[in-house]
Parts: sequence; C-alpha cells; structure tokens
Amino acid sequence: MRNTPSIRGPVVPSRGPLRPLGTDEVRVTGGFWASRQRVNGEQTLAHALEWMDSLGWTANFATVATGSGSRERKGREFSDSEVYKIVEAMSWEHGRSPDSELDARVDALTAAFAAAQAEDGYLSTSFGRDWQRPRHSDLAWGHELYCTGHLVQAAVARTRTAGAGPLLEVARRAADHVCERFQPDGTGVCGHPEIETALVELARLTGEQRYLDQAALFVERRGHRGLPAHEFGWSYFNDDVPVRKATVLRGHAVRSLYLACGAVDVAVETGDDDLLAAVAEQFDRAWARRTYLTGGMGSRHQDEAFGDDFVLPADRAYAETCAGVATVMLAQRLLLATGESRYADVTDRVLHNLIAGAIGDDGRSFFYANTLHQRTPARPWHGGERLDVVGGLRAPWYEVSCCLPNIARLLASLSSYLVTADDTGLRLHQYASCDVETALADGRRVGVEVRTSYPEGGDVAVRVRRGGGRWSITLRVPGWAAGAVLVVGGERRPVAPGDVVVDRDWAVGEEIRLELPMRPRFTWPDPRIDAVRGCVAVERGPVVLCAESLGEHDLDVLRVHTGHEPEQTGDAAVVRARFDVPADASWPYGEPPARPGAAVALRLTPYHRWARRGPSTMRVWLPAD
Amino acid sequence: MRNTPSIRGPVVPSRGPLRPLGTDEVRVTGGFWASRQRVNGEQTLAHALEWMDSLGWTANFATVATGSGSRERKGREFSDSEVYKIVEAMSWEHGRSPDSELDARVDALTAAFAAAQAEDGYLSTSFGRDWQRPRHSDLAWGHELYCTGHLVQAAVARTRTAGAGPLLEVARRAADHVCERFQPDGTGVCGHPEIETALVELARLTGEQRYLDQAALFVERRGHRGLPAHEFGWSYFNDDVPVRKATVLRGHAVRSLYLACGAVDVAVETGDDDLLAAVAEQFDRAWARRTYLTGGMGSRHQDEAFGDDFVLPADRAYAETCAGVATVMLAQRLLLATGESRYADVTDRVLHNLIAGAIGDDGRSFFYANTLHQRTPARPWHGGERLDVVGGLRAPWYEVSCCLPNIARLLASLSSYLVTADDTGLRLHQYASCDVETALADGRRVGVEVRTSYPEGGDVAVRVRRGGGRWSITLRVPGWAAGAVLVVGGERRPVAPGDVVVDRDWAVGEEIRLELPMRPRFTWPDPRIDAVRGCVAVERGPVVLCAESLGEHDLDVLRVHTGHEPEQTGDAAVVRARFDVPADASWPYGEPPARPGAAVALRLTPYHRWARRGPSTMRVWLPAD
Repeated sequence: MRNTPSIRGPVVPSRGPLRPLGTDEVRVTGGFWASRQRVNGEQTLAHALEWMDSLGWTANFATVATGSGSRERKGREFSDSEVYKIVEAMSWEHGRSPDSELDARVDALTAAFAAAQAEDGYLSTSFGRDWQRPRHSDLAWGHELYCTGHLVQAAVARTRTAGAGPLLEVARRAADHVCERFQPDGTGVCGHPEIETALVELARLTGEQRYLDQAALFVERRGHRGLPAHEFGWSYFNDDVPVRKATVLRGHAVRSLYLACGAVDVAVETGDDDLLAAVAEQFDRAWARRTYLTGGMGSRHQDEAFGDDFVLPADRAYAETCAGVATVMLAQRLLLATGESRYADVTDRVLHNLIAGAIGDDGRSFFYANTLHQRTPARPWHGGERLDVVGGLRAPWYEVSCCLPNIARLLASLSSYLVTADDTGLRLHQYASCDVETALADGRRVGVEVRTSYPEGGDVAVRVRRGGGRWSITLRVPGWAAGAVLVVGGERRPVAPGDVVVDRDWAVGEEIRLELPMRPRFTWPDPRIDAVRGCVAVERGPVVLCAESLGEHDLDVLRVHTGHEPEQTGDAAVVRARFDVPADASWPYGEPPARPGAAVALRLTPYHRWARRGPSTMRVWLPAD
Repeated sequence: MRNTPSIRGPVVPSRGPLRPLGTDEVRVTGGFWASRQRVNGEQTLAHALEWMDSLGWTANFATVATGSGSRERKGREFSDSEVYKIVEAMSWEHGRSPDSELDARVDALTAAFAAAQAEDGYLSTSFGRDWQRPRHSDLAWGHELYCTGHLVQAAVARTRTAGAGPLLEVARRAADHVCERFQPDGTGVCGHPEIETALVELARLTGEQRYLDQAALFVERRGHRGLPAHEFGWSYFNDDVPVRKATVLRGHAVRSLYLACGAVDVAVETGDDDLLAAVAEQFDRAWARRTYLTGGMGSRHQDEAFGDDFVLPADRAYAETCAGVATVMLAQRLLLATGESRYADVTDRVLHNLIAGAIGDDGRSFFYANTLHQRTPARPWHGGERLDVVGGLRAPWYEVSCCLPNIARLLASLSSYLVTADDTGLRLHQYASCDVETALADGRRVGVEVRTSYPEGGDVAVRVRRGGGRWSITLRVPGWAAGAVLVVGGERRPVAPGDVVVDRDWAVGEEIRLELPMRPRFTWPDPRIDAVRGCVAVERGPVVLCAESLGEHDLDVLRVHTGHEPEQTGDAAVVRARFDVPADASWPYGEPPARPGAAVALRLTPYHRWARRGPSTMRVWLPAD
C-alpha cells in the first residue's frame, strides 16, 4: 500500500505491507506507558532543557551566530544533536498534548538554529568559523552529518505535528548543503551514521528525490575503509564491510543500528529487496547471538560495541540506552517493511525492560548503560565528580547525555509504535490501553478501544468503537506466550505465538479478548553464552525479573532451586533459593565449593524497577543449584 | 640480615629475612627458562631496539638535544621509558652474558640521554622546551616521573652489573632534580607510579637518604585526590585512598602494582611494618579475588583496571603482560620482606603461564593482553593497520609497547628471582636448572647445582657443590603439590606444601631430591566467579592447560566429562569430552539445551604454548558436563 507522508509518526515508508498509524490516530489512555508519557512530557523535557541551558549547549547557536570566537563554545562536538533531539521530542509531545509553552520554545530554538546557519545552508556550532576547525575536516569524529541528521528528524517531527514552518526550512537548507557537498561523484561518510535515515524521512516528507539519492549514496559508500584507521578498527564505524555484504551487526552498537535503519529506509524506498534482506539477516543474527535478555545490545565498554557472538557478560553489561532506542527504531522499520510480527516481539522486549528500566520514576534521571548484574551498591551522586556511565544508579546527566533526549523522543512518539493498518484492517503489535481510529485502505473509518493492564496483567480487551461490517483485527501473540487464549463471541480458543487474525463482521461495541499467560517462568541461556552458564533467569510476560538486594542478601552467593517453578506474587515472582557460605581462601581456584546455606523464599522484582529504592546489588541471571 | 647494595639484582633490600642472590651467584644452565633467556638476549633486545630506532623513539634524545623544534618528536609521551627499560634489559643481559656490542650500545644511548638532560638535571624529551608543554604541567598523564623512574632502574642495573658510570650520573642528576622539585613541602605525584620503587632502589645503591625520603613522600601523598578528576575515577591512579588505608589493589593494574612495589620498598627501608602489612593485605586480597588462574591481573579493557572482586571474565581477559611483570616484582619484594614462600608460589604461577605465554618463540612477538578464551581465530597481521592488543596472535609491536621491554628486563635478570639466602643457608624458590654459589651470613661459601626438567617434569635434584658442613637448604613445595616427596640420604618422606628445610651436615657431592606430583588435575573456580561458573580448568604442576583448536573443533560447544580424571600425555593432558550440537534458534534464551555430541578424547596443551601454530581458538575454562 502507499502511505501519505503526513502520518504523524517518525517513520512513514511510502509503501509496504503495513501502514503506521500516527500519534493522532492512536492515543494511549492509561496504564504502564501512559504514566511514562506523562512524566516525559511534564518532567523529562524540562529537565533536559534545563541541563542543556545550564551547560550552554542551547546557547551555542547564539554564541556562534554573533560571529565572535571570544565566547567559548560549550560541550562536546555533538552537543547540537542533543538540542535537536529534544526539539524532536518537544515536537512529538506538543503534537500529542498541545502546549503553547513547548510550542514557543521550539520556535525560539528554531530561530537560534536559523541564526547560526551559514548562507549556504551549512549548520554546525563546532566547525567552520575562523576560530574553529574547517568544515568536514574530521568526518570520523566530528559528527557534523550526525547532527544534521538529528536536525532533519526534528524538522520531520515538527512538520508532521504542526505543519511546515521555519524548522523545516532550516533542515532543508542544511540537507541541501549536505547533498551538494557530498554529491554523487564525491566521497565521505560520517563517522556516526544517522544522516542516512534522516534524509530518507525528509525525502518521504517532502517528496524530494535528491535526499533519498544522497542517503542511498551514504549507505553504499560505507564499508570501504574510507574513514581513517582507528585502534577500534573500521568495524567501529561499520566501515569494514559494505552494508549489503555484512552478515551481522557489529562495531559500535548505536552506529550500527542507526546505519541499519537508514539502509532499511533506502531499501524500502528504492525497492532494493537484496539490501532489505541483508539488513534483516544482520539484525536477526545479532538478535540471536549478540543481545541481552533485556533486549540490550552492545556488550563492550571500551568501544561501546557489539562483542563477538554469545559474548554477553551480565556484569558491566553496557547495553547503552541509545542502542535500545535504536533497536526499537530498527525493529519498527523491519516490521513495517516485512509485516513479520517477530519484530514487534523485539520492540515489546526492549520497551518493557531496557527502556522502561533506563528512565527514573521522576523522569529526571536515567541510565546510560544498563547492566544485568550489579555487584556492589552504587555511591549516590552528590554533584562535582564525573558520573560513571555504569554507576548503578540513574543519574540526572552525564558528560555525554545522548540517551535522555533519545528516550524522550521515543516516549513522546510511542503511540505510533503500537498499531498499524494492513490491507484488511488493524494490527495490534504492542499492548497498551489506547484509543485507535483510522481509515482503512478502502476509506472506511474504523476504531477500537484497547484496555489492558499489560505488562502487569495478560488480559487484552479490544472493543470495536467504530466501523461495523467486515474487516480484520490482527493480534500479536508474543513469542513467549505459549498457551494464550483468544475469546471471540464468547468462544475461547487457544492461539499460538505469532499473528492471530480475527476477520469478521463487526458490530460496534463488540469485544474480543486475548488472554496471555503471565505465569513467571524460568529462562535458560544458550550454552554458548559463557558469561551466564549455570544460571537461570525468571521472566513474566515480556518482563525480565531480577533479584535485588539493599543489603539483606549477598547476591554473589545466591543459588536458585530450579526444581520448583517460580511462584507469582503481584507482578513479580518468588523463587526457592539459598545463600551459600563461601570458602574464603587465599586463592580462588581449586578449593572445595561453598557450604550450602538454608533454603529461603526469594522475592524477585521486575528488572525495570531495580535501583529505584536506593543503591543496591542486583542480578538478572541467578545461579542455579 | 643486612645486605650489600652491590648484589646484582633489581631489588636489594638493605634488610629482611632473606637476602637475594645476584645474577652472578645464580646462573640458569638449561631447561625452560634458559632457552627463553637465550632468545631474549639474542633476539628480543635487538628486535626492540630496531623498532624503537625505526619509530624514532631512541632518536628523540638527540632531536631534543639540538634544541630545535623543527624536527618532530616521535612516539607517545612515555616513549623515553621504553628506551630506558631496554637499556635496563641490556644491562642485565650484558651482566649475565658479556657482550661488547650491547655494552657499547648502552654507552651510546647513555651519551644521548646525557646530551638531552637539562643543566638542572631535568630529563624528558616530551616536556619543557620552548615548543613543548611546560615541565610537570600534566602530572596525571605526562609520565615524566614515570620515565625518570625507569631511567633510574636502568642506571641501577647498569651500576650493579658494570659499576658506577655515566648512566648513574645521569640518573642521579635526574633524581636530584625530582627531589628538589617535589620537595617535602611541595605537592604532586605522577599519574603513573614507578618513581617510588626506583628512588628506593637508588637510595639502596647509593646510600643517599634523600631518595628514600622522596619515595616515602610520594607514597604518602598519593590517595588524597590530588590528581585531576577523570572519568575512570581517582582509583585509576590509586589516588582515591591513601596507600596505608586501602584494602585491595584496584584501578589501573600496572599503576597499582608498581605503587605497591614502591610502598613495600619504603616500608622495608623505614621499618614501617604497618605500611608493609597494609600492602601485603591489599595484594593478598587481590590475589584471592581479582586474579586469573594464569596469575594475570586486571580484567578490564577500558581502563586496564582491576574489576570488582570475582569479576574475571575469561573472554577478552585483559591481564596485561606488564601487570604480570609487576606482579613478579611485587611478589619478590613481599617474599624478601616476609620470607613467606606463598609469594614464591605467586611468581611460579605468573612466570609459567602469563610471562611464558606472552613472549613468542622467536622473541620478536608478544602479547599485550593475555586472554583466557579466544572465540574467533585472529587475523594475521600484515602491517599497515593498527594492532589490537587482544588480537589473539603475538604481534611484533603495538603503538604502546611497554610490555616487550618489560619482559626483556625480567628475563635478563630472572636468575635473581630463583634463590635467596637466609640466616642458615639457601632457599630455593623457583625451580630451574642452575648453578648457585654464594657466601652465607657467616662468610662460608656454599654452592649447589640444581637440575630439573621443571615445569615439564617434577623432579628437582639439588647437589652440593661447595660448602661441606652444617647449613640448610630450604625447598619450596608449591601450593598445588599435595603428595610431594623429599628424598634425603636415600630416604623418602612426604612433604606438605610450604617450605621444607633440610638442615644437615653436607658432604660435597651429596644430593637431595624433591619429587613434585605432576598428574594433571581438575581445578574448580570459586562459585562467585560468575564468568566461569560451571567450568573446570586443567592444571599440571604450575602450568595451566588449555583447549586449542585450529579449526578441528568448535570450542564454543565443548563439554568436558569431569567424572574421569585427566590423563597425562607428554607435558599436557587428555580429557574426555564431547562437542554438542547447538540449537540454532532466533533467540538465545529459553530454548532447550544443545544435543549432546559423541564422546571424544580431547588433547589439551599448555596455555603458554597457545597461538604458536597460527590463528586458533582457545579456552582455559572448559564447560563441565
């Protein structure tokens, strides 16, 4: 089907088996994500702006606009991108929940961007002026095109939620400059992919072929070792192997995932099925071999990179929050391009574990890295010293704070990830209480009301609010939900994981129900994942549970009794366990094992709730007895 | 006892329960270490000099001596230290095996150092000239005092092997400048400890109290967060907690170990038993909780640092070679200060696994990091691109090549680590075929001939060559050697791990024998070491074995049958094992386990021999069935 470019969502392919619904067509009305969206709008946006104002990142635009080198530019070379990302988040939020203050702030920041933009469209506060390094003199690390990509995405969000205006003009001029500078017979890619997916979306929005062509060029140019050698290797930049020849995501996780997003976008718009298949295979392999149970990607600290297959240490797991956001972005693109609901399973897992865990209850603190094992309680932060990204407590800010605006733009646009339309009706991919209304391909308007306590509960009720007559409602049965039951017209029938299509003559007011089994369950790792051999995790629905200790237990010596299934309690579980008494030897090898402690009932907690009650130790993977 | 400062060894405390023997008193005559010493002298020294010449590191001294900024200084800010370290190695080697070429090269380099030295004694090729950063303007990262420390150690080696000369003069002037600049009422420590232990040794050599005082000051000054904050935290520099208050080695492993060496030296020379006890406790705890089976220390890549207790991932284990050298340095100091033979156990383990593994057969290649698990075969290096320090193949050089000259100086002075004298006789700590002769405390000259095939074999024969009459020979029974037998006068008796003293009236020609059990054995990890839970290692004598595959096995799916003890074959072992067939799922969690493969006999190999036949996969820790 062909889609209109004005759909209110971050990714609107011009064709594909599924049409995304905009944030005006799906409105989250309550539950798990509604409260997070509310906090995002009420707290996170303001918090991020306050920090970026106080650090001088927003003021950089005015600073450089004055043309004076006497006032120092603040922040890292990519700080512009954080401002653009928060403008994108504000745009989605203003679209979701109109707010004149947000609106005015977006306009004011847009004016600052415009003032800092050069006559020829180039826009960066870091490069190009007399007292700065020359434009594009450091493609590997300068992040100029990366920043421009975020500017473009902000403009897309603004245009789709508030109509064309000055931000779109700024972005188009910047994009035009990129196209001219990096034209077909030129060379060069950005060390950090991002411009690719942004340019395709701008092409979708504006209908301008040149943006798509430039994005396709950037995708094809990468992988030929055009960037300078670095100790992390060319794979860090994904510049080691051409995109269509690679077999797995690798290198810097966020770079790799953003590039894959751009490649899918290019493939969809150009009908390049080989490229689409190549990226899907890369993602599928990374998902099968390089992903944490929480959906986190990228295990290495040193280069924020994917490890080799099955190298997934729980302790000091990096699993950057931005990589989680990027995984949701890529999964959505693959879902829209292929119609395969397993990509919605990906989003479900990443959202309910990594993303839900990364942001603090107050919306003003966040994790940069998302470990699966905290051995020692974090020291609370009192300001002053630099924050370690693996501190074990959500921090208000980091020197590099890409993650918070990234979460903010995802949450503000979240409703566009929940439901799509296909040729015959609606497809529900993510379960949240929401009201949905859209026009089907044949022009009929249909609407449903979804009510659920997911992920705490497994009951999903879908009531037809509009659109009597025959059309279909397709429900995703998550991969973990063996034993799910569908109730249609009072009739219960078991449904297997995958898509279940209910294609019938609807009467307005009619309700169907999906019952997902929410028993907590043991989950065993592939034996090739050395780091968690001999351990078991407990999951409940899409939610990974963990053991957390505020000092009452030493989780280093935990042993879980796996002969007894975990029992549900609230939205979590209790397992039978013991705490061993270790042999404290002078050498930790060759000694007899620890003495078994007495049996206890150990209450687990959802992973996304850990470290919310203060410094604690935590483990997702529980040593099995 | 009080020792003379002229003993030919790198560490000669003025007092303590043990007196080290010099390289002239203990000569390795054959076997495992003799061949490595020979290759070190014949190949490694020349190889390192060739690289440092070709990279311009040696020429830096002449470059800056001309006073011209027009010629660019080469290498990192600490490259002087590599030149000093190789001069130290050359000095020990010339002492061990006189060589006029080596001698002349040391003199020539010494002349270059002298020419580059400022009038006031300051010596660095990186700082202080018009076109360079000011002296001591970057104590955290500038490495000036670190370099001076290595200069001093080189001068100590040269003086103890060839007598006082111009290198000692250069070093004294540099050390005097350090004492003046960093005098008692001043502040400042170097970001990389090293000067502390060097200054104490210079004090021992020269009898100058000021060097000892300055070293003591540097030790006391550290730990008060005087260095600037860094994202790795103050612990990286060991500047987080005063040395005498810390409870464990932490932060950057080499920095931590070098500092500990200096602290022990200061403690011994000043009679500061509290400081000695504090450092011993820190090392003991690090050995018990933060050390790999190979004796490697420092598990983190990002900051080359110790991880938390029991965080010892085998895969991408960092275990820097320099940290191994530093562990031997510290263990030797603790052995000499305490007389406790468990510190000789430490040296035994580090030497026969980490150090023996780090250097290539040709003496012209080496590991920087020493992983315990290689999942994918390394790509051979063909020049051009930067070498990853965890490449899985020994490389000829790295951008930071501290490790090779560090191994070289250790191997060239190795005989000084084997034997000591105590009040009543000789103590044999490390077993290598060697000839020993020295004077006891009462002036009597005694000598023994040690013949052994250790570590391949467990037989150690000690024949008295000189010194009839009553004196003692003390033999170390390694911690792993339960079931050892001592044969004295034809009589066999079991001896327990620890020291066994044979105190008797010797006749010249008389021989005693120690028989160490060399059956390969399974070794289990402390259950708190998550990374190797469910795995077992195989050791034989002091040697850690490993499974290595050049493609014939997929070690990711190995399972070892632990119901059957490993069987010896040659100097290694065979275990019963199987290779499972993994379930190749789209998601690596929650699936049924792999299908068991057929039983095979798997031949293991000494860890120190891995990656010598080409790119391979390897694992020390073998998943147990």
